[in-house]
Amino acid sequence: MSLICNTPKPPYYAVIFTSVRSSIEDGYADMANHMMKLAAQQPGFLGVESARESIGITVSYWESLQAIKDWKNNQNHMQAQQLGKEKWYSEYTTRIVRVEKEYSFNDEGRP
Amino acid sequence: MSLICNTPKPPYYAVIFTSVRSSIEDGYADMANHMMKLAAQQPGFLGVESARESIGITVSYWESLQAIKDWKNNQNHMQAQQLGKEKWYSEYTTRIVRVEKEYSFNDEGRP
Repeated sequence: MSLICNTPKPPYYAVIFTSVRSSIEDGYADMANHMMKLAAQQPGFLGVESARESIGITVSYWESLQAIKDWKNNQNHMQAQQLGKEKWYSEYTTRIVRVEKEYSFNDEGRP
Repeated sequence: MSLICNTPKPPYYAVIFTSVRSSIEDGYADMANHMMKLAAQQPGFLGVESARESIGITVSYWESLQAIKDWKNNQNHMQAQQLGKEKWYSEYTTRIVRVEKEYSFNDEGRP
């Protein structure tokens, strides 16, 4: 399975969540895993890609703006967002975007 | 200075570049640094955020689709893209997006 999401033909939508962690570890990893699983069960979820070094970038992909809104307002997710502000993040930016074009490469054809 | 880009009020545009590296290191880090510097000199460049674990995610922000097109067609960047396919990446996806909404949090107000 590819680590890169196999998203549909655009247009579709995405949330780019860029964050800087605080020094507080307490419960973070468990909650992050739990949220990944919950998001994947939401209607309209298309996939997620994530990496962290100095900053963390998580991009989740969605069929519609409504699907993003529904996930934002999910009760468990709202509790996680609140804890994120109180404990786990020193800073973050959330950007809601519309994907206009997409093109991919893989090296299966490489000699 | 924040690691998270201080982008303007939407709408603006972004390129989400998600990649899996090949095992070939030769010249990659130098080229990546060089491309970051060149991109920052392009008209319409707003900033870049990047992290790599199993996958790499680089999000660059731009004033317009034209600015993205001009960077894509930059001669030095085109050479780098070609080498990327030949050597450095086993797989990648590029997504061109329009940023519709943005909201931020920082802990300056945290007790």
